[in-house]
Amino acid sequence: MQSSLRDRLPVQSATLFDAKASKNMTFEEIGKQMGRNEVAVAAIFYGNAQTTPEDVTALSNILGIDHSALEKQLAGYPYRGHAMDMPPKEPLIYRLYEIVQNYGFAYKAILNEKFGDGIMSAISFSTKVEKETDDKGDWVVITLRGKW
Amino acid sequence: MQSSLRDRLPVQSATLFDAKASKNMTFEEIGKQMGRNEVAVAAIFYGNAQTTPEDVTALSNILGIDHSALEKQLAGYPYRGHAMDMPPKEPLIYRLYEIVQNYGFAYKAILNEKFGDGIMSAISFSTKVEKETDDKGDWVVITLRGKW
Amino acid sequence: MQSSLRDRLPVQSATLFDAKASKNMTFEEIGKQMGRNEVAVAAIFYGNAQTTPEDVTALSNILGIDHSALEKQLAGYPYRGHAMDMPPKEPLIYRLYEIVQNYGFAYKAILNEKFGDGIMSAISFSTKVEKETDDKGDWVVITLRGKW
Amino acid sequence: MQSSLRDRLPVQSATLFDAKASKNMTFEEIGKQMGRNEVAVAAIFYGNAQTTPEDVTALSNILGIDHSALEKQLAGYPYRGHAMDMPPKEPLIYRLYEIVQNYGFAYKAILNEKFGDGIMSAISFSTKVEKETDDKGDWVVITLRGKW
Amino acid sequence: MQSSLRDRLPVQSATLFDAKASKNMTFEEIGKQMGRNEVAVAAIFYGNAQTTPEDVTALSNILGIDHSALEKQLAGYPYRGHAMDMPPKEPLIYRLYEIVQNYGFAYKAILNEKFGDGIMSAISFSTKVEKETDDKGDWVVITLRGKW
Amino acid sequence: MQSSLRDRLPVQSATLFDAKASKNMTFEEIGKQMGRNEVAVAAIFYGNAQTTPEDVTALSNILGIDHSALEKQLAGYPYRGHAMDMPPKEPLIYRLYEIVQNYGFAYKAILNEKFGDGIMSAISFSTKVEKETDDKGDWVVITLRGKW
Amino acid sequence: MQSSLRDRLPVQSATLFDAKASKNMTFEEIGKQMGRNEVAVAAIFYGNAQTTPEDVTALSNILGIDHSALEKQLAGYPYRGHAMDMPPKEPLIYRLYEIVQNYGFAYKAILNEKFGDGIMSAISFSTKVEKETDDKGDWVVITLRGKW
Amino acid sequence: MQSSLRDRLPVQSATLFDAKASKNMTFEEIGKQMGRNEVAVAAIFYGNAQTTPEDVTALSNILGIDHSALEKQLAGYPYRGHAMDMPPKEPLIYRLYEIVQNYGFAYKAILNEKFGDGIMSAISFSTKVEKETDDKGDWVVITLRGKW
Amino acid sequence: MQSSLRDRLPVQSATLFDAKASKNMTFEEIGKQMGRNEVAVAAIFYGNAQTTPEDVTALSNILGIDHSALEKQLAGYPYRGHAMDMPPKEPLIYRLYEIVQNYGFAYKAILNEKFGDGIMSAISFSTKVEKETDDKGDWVVITLRGKW
Amino acid sequence: MQSSLRDRLPVQSATLFDAKASKNMTFEEIGKQMGRNEVAVAAIFYGNAQTTPEDVTALSNILGIDHSALEKQLAGYPYRGHAMDMPPKEPLIYRLYEIVQNYGFAYKAILNEKFGDGIMSAISFSTKVEKETDDKGDWVVITLRGKW
Repeated sequence: MQSSLRDRLPVQSATLFDAKASKNMTFEEIGKQMGRNEVAVAAIFYGNAQTTPEDVTALSNILGIDHSALEKQLAGYPYRGHAMDMPPKEPLIYRLYEIVQNYGFAYKAILNEKFGDGIMSAISFSTKVEKETDDKGDWVVITLRGKW
Repeated sequence: MQSSLRDRLPVQSATLFDAKASKNMTFEEIGKQMGRNEVAVAAIFYGNAQTTPEDVTALSNILGIDHSALEKQLAGYPYRGHAMDMPPKEPLIYRLYEIVQNYGFAYKAILNEKFGDGIMSAISFSTKVEKETDDKGDWVVITLRGKW
Repeated sequence: MQSSLRDRLPVQSATLFDAKASKNMTFEEIGKQMGRNEVAVAAIFYGNAQTTPEDVTALSNILGIDHSALEKQLAGYPYRGHAMDMPPKEPLIYRLYEIVQNYGFAYKAILNEKFGDGIMSAISFSTKVEKETDDKGDWVVITLRGKW
Repeated sequence: MQSSLRDRLPVQSATLFDAKASKNMTFEEIGKQMGRNEVAVAAIFYGNAQTTPEDVTALSNILGIDHSALEKQLAGYPYRGHAMDMPPKEPLIYRLYEIVQNYGFAYKAILNEKFGDGIMSAISFSTKVEKETDDKGDWVVITLRGKW
Repeated sequence: MQSSLRDRLPVQSATLFDAKASKNMTFEEIGKQMGRNEVAVAAIFYGNAQTTPEDVTALSNILGIDHSALEKQLAGYPYRGHAMDMPPKEPLIYRLYEIVQNYGFAYKAILNEKFGDGIMSAISFSTKVEKETDDKGDWVVITLRGKW
Repeated sequence: MQSSLRDRLPVQSATLFDAKASKNMTFEEIGKQMGRNEVAVAAIFYGNAQTTPEDVTALSNILGIDHSALEKQLAGYPYRGHAMDMPPKEPLIYRLYEIVQNYGFAYKAILNEKFGDGIMSAISFSTKVEKETDDKGDWVVITLRGKW
Repeated sequence: MQSSLRDRLPVQSATLFDAKASKNMTFEEIGKQMGRNEVAVAAIFYGNAQTTPEDVTALSNILGIDHSALEKQLAGYPYRGHAMDMPPKEPLIYRLYEIVQNYGFAYKAILNEKFGDGIMSAISFSTKVEKETDDKGDWVVITLRGKW
Repeated sequence: MQSSLRDRLPVQSATLFDAKASKNMTFEEIGKQMGRNEVAVAAIFYGNAQTTPEDVTALSNILGIDHSALEKQLAGYPYRGHAMDMPPKEPLIYRLYEIVQNYGFAYKAILNEKFGDGIMSAISFSTKVEKETDDKGDWVVITLRGKW
Repeated sequence: MQSSLRDRLPVQSATLFDAKASKNMTFEEIGKQMGRNEVAVAAIFYGNAQTTPEDVTALSNILGIDHSALEKQLAGYPYRGHAMDMPPKEPLIYRLYEIVQNYGFAYKAILNEKFGDGIMSAISFSTKVEKETDDKGDWVVITLRGKW
Repeated sequence: MQSSLRDRLPVQSATLFDAKASKNMTFEEIGKQMGRNEVAVAAIFYGNAQTTPEDVTALSNILGIDHSALEKQLAGYPYRGHAMDMPPKEPLIYRLYEIVQNYGFAYKAILNEKFGDGIMSAISFSTKVEKETDDKGDWVVITLRGKW
């Protein structure tokens, strides 16, 4: 976790990131042990995703965090999104924002054409990140899957 | 094209949308005939993607637009993104924005972990929209693929 | 329709409001004849709600508007929300905004407590406005009903 | 209470939320014992609603908080609304904001038609949240009732 | 009416201001003939106050405007406030804004102390402007009177 | 003083509000003993008005605050206005802001008509708050008096 | 007058600038003939300063503009300041803004020290621009003179 | 220094203002002893102007501050302007901002006419504040002198 | 010139871009014939750079534009910068903005270290764009050269 | 490092700047010893550039910072850009921003003309600052080199 973000994130963020650093684990490794996608795990770390009791137990075991302390920090419901500057100043996150800015009209036109009037849920929603490599180099493949 | 957007979009947008309405074609049909993904076609309609001379000829043929008039309107380079309100007020587009707001930190964390320091290009970039249906209903699957 | 809003609304708004003024009808009367709630009818007039072919025919008949002209204006999908200043400067609309500002945390807390983590849809959503009168005067009752 | 909101809320918020967590009570249970609607109770917790002396006594008894300490924290008048980001970044609260953005014109048109020129009070105002379940799932029903 | 505001105000504004200029009347004179306070008359000219049928007739007679044309322009309900830049750039209007900025806390404290929790209506509200002169020069006295 | 404002107000605010709470006095009582209008007294408490040496002595005596400590806190000149969010989120203060938004043009028109080109001072300025009661209930009367 | 500003300025701006261009006169020359400072003359051209009847006659004579047409355009009171973007994007104007940003605290401190609590009027105010040349080149000297 | 600004200003500000208060000196007196204009001295206090080694020694001597402590606090280059809210909420500073808003176009027009295309430096720049008194009262005279 | 920018740019922009398109010339070719850097030429086209009489003659000759018409359009001084959205929404321009956001502190630190306190002029300033190609592909080299 | 920025920068910034001040070294000297450009070194100090393990070792040795403490502070990936106010209030950094505002259109036009549609990377990017001196004084030369 970037030290200058520490005050803007919920208390569990520091606990989880510090434990992850001690264990020297990746999100991918944690996710595999928890049985959850690594993006969802990272979202939990930043306080943007809800945890089940099983998640709390798993995180406590995997990262060696006292269960009841973690449970207390993760109690309640996530208050999502409020730590992010919009427009994002961070270049990598800005690129995603820029895709919305540039392709927003096109996505809406295609989605309306394919599905009629309506909306893609950002809540009944899952996402994953994959890496592809070809002779031009590495490619990021992000998949968003949301209920219409 | 929404009539209240007409003045904020480049001149080719009205030409293309009017022709599409006359021909009563979908983006999917146009895209198939052009050999381009339907999202890219919609982005061309909104002035957010560059056309090749082949694209101009194809659009002229498919939509029955005078070639030289269309060529003139599509000359130059796209001035991308400026017609979109940010934050988007349109709910469907807002949902994509919200994904960036909620998952931005998580995407950055996972991408850095998988690829190291760097960035996903929003320019050397392609995207597609697919529809999946299961017993819960329809699902939107958006794939973003960008060069690292 | 307020004359100073005319340019910010889609073309059908002027058509519909002018016809409504000529017919001197209320939204309630139009809604009854269309079989739709009056709030939804008003939302159609402002370009914020989708019409079915039946709606177009009904509006054409009720308001005496040429069917094919209206059908053309109402074609496509609504581009919602973009004509509204946020924060709303209009006092009546501001009061609704203020309710979100003042009760937003409370609504979230109660909804999470009652329904768990999740969200109320603003799309699979209906709303109605009723008038109650008691010895203190008139009361507005607005009901929002959204899918969890 | 979300830990990252703690500094933006008044002092009584921490006191009340900590006691509620210790007692493991819901707003509904507290509201029933206080004889107040659960939304109003949550609004008190977030510092957006005024308490009567009876409320203070009830909260002190129900939650096991020292009466004079609580009374001191709840003295004075609420300074409403200032902790909420507008536009709300939290998705659930954003949906309510979006309803104002999308239906604001329609509400105003209907209210003016039904009540003439005027305004719905957001102060002489009550609200409640109910849960309905049908074969499509759960529905949130929010009722706003304000003096015209 | 300032020419650069013309496009931001409703259509009746131009009609009324042009007629007022032709008749070379002040708001005070018009108000006296209409039996309304001059500030309310000016607010009607700018589209921020509702007119009764009697107001329309009076304005038509006093200013020599065709009654049915004026009635049509003044039909509907005012869409208040949206033409004003906030913060106001105009120095005279900014001074009023500055009073809110500087005295807002003090007004709230005094009003809560005098009236308890609640709010002053800006709708059930009247206001007047008077001129006082003493040896230091002229003084503006603005009175705001609103229902608690 | 609202606890969540404490950090945004100057140091004397806490001193003065705490002493006022201990003495259980109203601004009206303090103002009478100081020979100043209660609104001005509240403005001093929030750091938005200048104190004379007599004010400091009076406040020290009335509220039982050590004179030299208070004098030091009140030394210097007020840095006015910076603690107030604009637009105000607090509903009561917002109503005053809304009056500027809705009546700003009208006030300017009337003031120019009555006084010619110029401005009302917000500095050579006094204000008072009065309570009137009639059969409709309580009314707030705020008077602003400024040098032209 | 910059052509892209034409729509944001009042109607007299175009009249005056066009006439000035035809006569090929400088503001200094016009000001000398009118007996007013050149900065005030420029402010009249941009609609930010009030004209006396003598000013109108002088401008009409000097610039060869029809008197009654000009009188009508200059009637009413200036609606000041609203055409300027703030922060100014124009570099020369930004430099003045930057002086306020960098020296604002210092000016306030010095002015309070020299004059006590109070304010410099921006209305009972005059300003002039002079050119000084020394061996380092040209210097701009702007003098602001305002009533305390 | 206003206590509520303390956290937004650099560390030397507190040191310098506290010492100035102890010595009970004005900026004018300090400036005379340092051989610098009082406005520049105030700008140093607020962290907006660079100090020479001679300035540090002078300030240390005049104000009785430990030389090496002060030298350390004043090391580096000023990070100018960032503590000022723009638009300024403080009325006195706002008046200067308002002058830019109202006279910006006029200054640019006059400066271009007198000097051609170019800009007035806000860096190779000096400024002073003078007090003039006539039978109308006190006048502030602020002079800005910048390299073209 | 992008058609959707046409209204935000000064009148000469349309004249110049239309002529350039007719002549089918690049900025590089025009610049060579005018003896000015191509970036400066493009800045003239967008109304952000001043032209000399020689420039006007050259542009008139090269592009086949009537001299006196062009001279009139280019008369006066550029009103720079106001057509650009900030933050830029256009991705290519955003990248330059992002460099300022990411490297701003570093540039300031290095410039202060190398030059002492002061500033780089953005007015006594020239810039050029070059293309370099190596085995990794094409590289853009932008050089900024400003007077300290 | 400016003391008022300390809280907005990551923890390593204080460590690095304090050590640099103790060693009394310039960025140029540090950069030479590290084998990296001085601008990149400054960017590391402000938390806007990634370090390699070699960089950490070099910084630790050169500046006398405990290796493992520094390594821990520099672990993870930079969260770029978020400490910078945009628009920058600091005059020197503002000048770079102003170049984007004034020359943005021109850069885009030239880059599109030279390279076709695409973008200059701000990530695969290097930059340097040089000092040139001629008889007019010192000149800053900033070179930006980015992958197309």
